[in-house]
Amino acid sequence: MKFNIALLAGDGIGPEVIEQAVKVSDAVAKKFGHEITWRPALTGAAAIDAVGEPYPDDTHEVCATSDAVLFGAIGHPKFDNDPSAPVRPEQGLLKMRKKLGLFANVRPTFTFPSLLDKSPLKQERIEGTDLVFLRELTGGIYFGEKGRRDNGETAFDNCVYTRAEVQRLAKKGFELAMARNKKLCCVDKANVLETSRLWRETVQAMEKDYPEVEVSYEFVDAVAMRLVQWPNSYDVLITENLFGDILTDEASVISGSMGLMPSASMGSDIALFEPIHGSYPQATGKNIANPMATVLSAAMMFEMAFNLPEEGQAIRDAVNKALAEGIVTEDLAEGGKAYGTKEVGDWLAANI
Amino acid sequence: MKFNIALLAGDGIGPEVIEQAVKVSDAVAKKFGHEITWRPALTGAAAIDAVGEPYPDDTHEVCATSDAVLFGAIGHPKFDNDPSAPVRPEQGLLKMRKKLGLFANVRPTFTFPSLLDKSPLKQERIEGTDLVFLRELTGGIYFGEKGRRDNGETAFDNCVYTRAEVQRLAKKGFELAMARNKKLCCVDKANVLETSRLWRETVQAMEKDYPEVEVSYEFVDAVAMRLVQWPNSYDVLITENLFGDILTDEASVISGSMGLMPSASMGSDIALFEPIHGSYPQATGKNIANPMATVLSAAMMFEMAFNLPEEGQAIRDAVNKALAEGIVTEDLAEGGKAYGTKEVGDWLAANI
Ligand SMILES: CC(C)[C@H](C(=O)O)[C@@H](O)C(=O)O
Ligand SMILES: CC(C)[C@H](C(=O)O)[C@@H](O)C(=O)O
Repeated sequence: MKFNIALLAGDGIGPEVIEQAVKVSDAVAKKFGHEITWRPALTGAAAIDAVGEPYPDDTHEVCATSDAVLFGAIGHPKFDNDPSAPVRPEQGLLKMRKKLGLFANVRPTFTFPSLLDKSPLKQERIEGTDLVFLRELTGGIYFGEKGRRDNGETAFDNCVYTRAEVQRLAKKGFELAMARNKKLCCVDKANVLETSRLWRETVQAMEKDYPEVEVSYEFVDAVAMRLVQWPNSYDVLITENLFGDILTDEASVISGSMGLMPSASMGSDIALFEPIHGSYPQATGKNIANPMATVLSAAMMFEMAFNLPEEGQAIRDAVNKALAEGIVTEDLAEGGKAYGTKEVGDWLAANI
Repeated sequence: MKFNIALLAGDGIGPEVIEQAVKVSDAVAKKFGHEITWRPALTGAAAIDAVGEPYPDDTHEVCATSDAVLFGAIGHPKFDNDPSAPVRPEQGLLKMRKKLGLFANVRPTFTFPSLLDKSPLKQERIEGTDLVFLRELTGGIYFGEKGRRDNGETAFDNCVYTRAEVQRLAKKGFELAMARNKKLCCVDKANVLETSRLWRETVQAMEKDYPEVEVSYEFVDAVAMRLVQWPNSYDVLITENLFGDILTDEASVISGSMGLMPSASMGSDIALFEPIHGSYPQATGKNIANPMATVLSAAMMFEMAFNLPEEGQAIRDAVNKALAEGIVTEDLAEGGKAYGTKEVGDWLAANI
């Protein structure tokens, strides 16, 4: 098969980790007889510097006409501590999500046996954890009307959801649950919020179409607790944009493998794949960043965007082998030999 | 001194744990020469059953004319799983907060050395944790306009904050930080929300009045992570209502001492004190519930409502002694002897 993949390296360590994911993807393409055309485009602080815009129209054009988007990381310290600056990298992110219609953010949290001791949680709490959040990504309070009144003395943010928005996200949730352990948790705050009551009644009405899925409804505050107490009690969780922002990040640190966690953002026409870690500016250009999360994001791309599970598994196998044999960057080296970003990428590509 | 204290026992184990806090408070009053008049009033499911309302006007009258409110817990399984039922115990809670003007929820998370092994976190992560959240409690998306449009197909919740609301909460935060370790973290989502930008600019403008306080600004998703990774890096955290709901609950489970955590809700005229645990319906009437969180809430009442730190310390000392000597309920007994709710209360009162 032939694929056009938009390549958004972004800021900080983005370009370095993306380079490894490209290498590994090319090795997969070679082995399985596919042909990939990479289409680089500007985003983030790099794009602001170049053209004054974090998600330029040209970049959107490249993404919208590709078969998938592979994304590094964005964010630069010069934009920190000034959340009201007129142009910021995050705005590019939100614009990109909206314009590409990436409504479902898929955030797995799973454990690697060899990394369990990295978790802040006790081993017996974290063992066996394998959950996926589906976070709604193009609605809610992120995109509702916001502004000031009373000469700037009053601020407001409107949270809005339509039944159709909830349905398309929940549908993906039910389908994912069917492909996994058939448990779905709808996370809301239906005891306080009207939008949450809409979420809950919409999901309740869909239950009958998926009789095999065991559905539960939990308040967001309760989930924030149980994620720390018994993360392995969850399978698939669906939630709205802001709750998802908070809970997926909370979930990402419990496994101790945050530096290895990939993610996907799915739309109706296109999907984007990216590591969950940030642009890690301090490490830029030092060849020390861990490329595995980006490489595993490429695995998700083969699986979810191209429907090629074997190709994805080949990447996962290579990563597991690297972890088992200690071919890792300094964050995982634990006193053993630390390999460079490039060297880990080379090793993974050679072991596809 | 003479105090009138409104006594809202509530549902489930509420009445049992409240009884112990009364006993211990009376022992303190006797020892230090105070006189307490307890003024019981209905709330929660108990009030719905009796008068059809979770926070009846009579109860409000009792609270508003007392020197403090001591609260047990509310919630009853018959109201669960129906968040859209016309009358629910939680509505009473929200109405009470609003009518009493309880704008600052004070939620400490601290550790008891003897209970460290109860934490889901590894010991080195949790050791030394001693933080306090100040959660804004009468504004934000909880109390903004909410409803449906388009024949119920669209739901909305409005989040609103005024500068004055942020200022009065932040003022308490700065003062608390001054009385503690002089570190204040403002938790917001200023990269996305206008209300958060108002929070941040308001707190920034107040920094100059508290030059000794070291202020940091963190996004809510980052705090959700760091609370699990390095909870002991925080001192005082201030945040808006919904973020506070999620993060204070997350923080409450990290210490392993959730059953012991007290809280306060402060207004301009009156303050309310309550354990953070729920009504624990399964344990009702069994004399097994742990009364220590409610007893420690009484300690906070002496300290914060009556400005009597010695009286509060006397209660804390008794609780520490009980923990050290194993005078605990079954949740903490670990194979040792488990005492009843009443027996723990009696022991604490006798040891004041
Ligand atoms: C950078 C920020 C706008 C973004 C979000 O809140 O969605 C980030 O936290 C994320 O989760 O991707
Ligand atoms: C019961 C509910 C309305 C309440 C809240 O969200 O404030 C509770 O979770 C709390 O934190 O006291």
